[in-house]
Amino acid sequence: MSLLAQRLADLPGPDLAASAAVEERTAQVLRPSGALQWLDDVAAWKAGWQRSHRPTVERPAALVFAADHGVAAAGVSNYPAEITASMLAATQQSKATINAFAHTIGATVTAVDVGVGEPTNDMRHEAALSPERFDEITQVAFDAVDALDTDLLVLGELGIGNTTAAAAIAAAFAGGEAAVWVGRGTGIDDAGLERKKTAVQESVRRIAGVVDPLEILREVGGSELVAMAAATVAARHRSIPIVLDGYICTSSVLPLHRADPAALDHCIVGHCSAEPGHRKLLDAMGKKPLLDLDMRLGEGTGAMAAVPIVKMACAGVVEVATFDEWFGSE
Amino acid sequence: MSLLAQRLADLPGPDLAASAAVEERTAQVLRPSGALQWLDDVAAWKAGWQRSHRPTVERPAALVFAADHGVAAAGVSNYPAEITASMLAATQQSKATINAFAHTIGATVTAVDVGVGEPTNDMRHEAALSPERFDEITQVAFDAVDALDTDLLVLGELGIGNTTAAAAIAAAFAGGEAAVWVGRGTGIDDAGLERKKTAVQESVRRIAGVVDPLEILREVGGSELVAMAAATVAARHRSIPIVLDGYICTSSVLPLHRADPAALDHCIVGHCSAEPGHRKLLDAMGKKPLLDLDMRLGEGTGAMAAVPIVKMACAGVVEVATFDEWFGSE
Repeated sequence: MSLLAQRLADLPGPDLAASAAVEERTAQVLRPSGALQWLDDVAAWKAGWQRSHRPTVERPAALVFAADHGVAAAGVSNYPAEITASMLAATQQSKATINAFAHTIGATVTAVDVGVGEPTNDMRHEAALSPERFDEITQVAFDAVDALDTDLLVLGELGIGNTTAAAAIAAAFAGGEAAVWVGRGTGIDDAGLERKKTAVQESVRRIAGVVDPLEILREVGGSELVAMAAATVAARHRSIPIVLDGYICTSSVLPLHRADPAALDHCIVGHCSAEPGHRKLLDAMGKKPLLDLDMRLGEGTGAMAAVPIVKMACAGVVEVATFDEWFGSE
Repeated sequence: MSLLAQRLADLPGPDLAASAAVEERTAQVLRPSGALQWLDDVAAWKAGWQRSHRPTVERPAALVFAADHGVAAAGVSNYPAEITASMLAATQQSKATINAFAHTIGATVTAVDVGVGEPTNDMRHEAALSPERFDEITQVAFDAVDALDTDLLVLGELGIGNTTAAAAIAAAFAGGEAAVWVGRGTGIDDAGLERKKTAVQESVRRIAGVVDPLEILREVGGSELVAMAAATVAARHRSIPIVLDGYICTSSVLPLHRADPAALDHCIVGHCSAEPGHRKLLDAMGKKPLLDLDMRLGEGTGAMAAVPIVKMACAGVVEVATFDEWFGSE
């Protein structure tokens, strides 16, 4: 049994009393009941996982996992694989878009190398990761989460070729033609898109007999996708709520959802990506994204863009007077 | 000629060189071209109105105008008119939702009384505002904008009965059945909804011969709606970009748009309200809202929720390295 499977087997739930207290307060604050229903629900969700009657977002943090993909050899991206290492370095030196976004709201960004320059196997022909590598990456992600002091976690990724891995996971779980799940990623042309579809088809066909959700992740996921899934489970054990990013991030946690439908209860979806498979995946998982800004960058940027919304949702309950407080004091 | 009409006649344009410089940089920063197209467009827009090649959001500010409405006598809200005064006081004492939202991002909130306890005339039977009152309110709004030190302005409102005024403006300009433009506002019941429709129908019918857009605003607008329109024009003269709020805010600036289709070029729309007329109005004006979170509160909350997006859009251009900067230095 993998490390990830072990930790997935005993997931704690939220503090229901904290959620209920916030829900009650949302009905009493100085505004028409239900006028901010969705945000009120976000605040109650945050309260439950933060285990606090006064939910806040004070220390948001992003973990950005980076890795290379054997399937990049199939010509599925219009960027060379070397770009992953370069973008990892840029992120570590605060020169990437995720750093700029995080800076505006005082969030930290930690970029974690889980296989840059050390690509996965080519999933068309063999399992992307050996059981040993899968465990190694899981442990790195667990350690990365343990090192954080945060009350809201954003998960992001960097990895040339990783929309192909994401599409393979989505296709393996949700079925249907590969074409439904394959998009243009960083902006590949028509011929490249065909190569992506073929790579996804071949990979999914190869693992037709595999049923264990985490095994599917090991077979056709990438290292940074495994790391995001592992970070999601690690955060759950520390009761840290998560904002999920786009298509790749969502695909990476889909196996957790299939293994345990409650496994993502501590996650909300920050945005809907312009990558066409993302909306279908969210619909299938019953998750509604906070933002829909045609973003298709990754790095955790779509999730980071939603962090201020979560922060406002919390402040909109905690900092606003109730009718009783206000009319009692007037 | 009203004060507002005078100032509307000579609107300055944006700094096109600043916009173009930012647009050029968006094509060079460390991400696939077009991956954040919408946000890149927002940054270029911000640059043009901020007249800077390095757009930022450092001093966001909200102006919340409050006033009472004669048409409230028609039973168009499920709250008594006295709530306006109470909510104005709560906003001034930082106890309202807009204050909580603003606090999370360091924005200021200025609540301005433009007619609380001094309701407009009942628009079903006569012009809501006399020409003299219209000018007075315009001047108060001009002064309020002049008193601000801000690089991004949020406009909001408070006023029991003001979704009815907003619906009357929308119906007067866009036509169609009153039912199309009338929603439940703070949450009125079916009988109240019927009274709202009737009030809107009567008001629009009364002014059937009026064609001047600002005259329509005077006839069926409310004081805080006039103030928002005036603040929009005042901000334009100071080249301060604006984030518009929901249905009432959008209705209030519709007359400007009809008088001069370029009059709202310095405005973006923060969110799409749950009030059903809002999306139709935005479609008619060719404006796309940044957020769609089923909010229906007003106070400027939907616009304030979008401010961090504008800030991130700017940082995403200004603070991210270009490919040349990065690969030249690596």
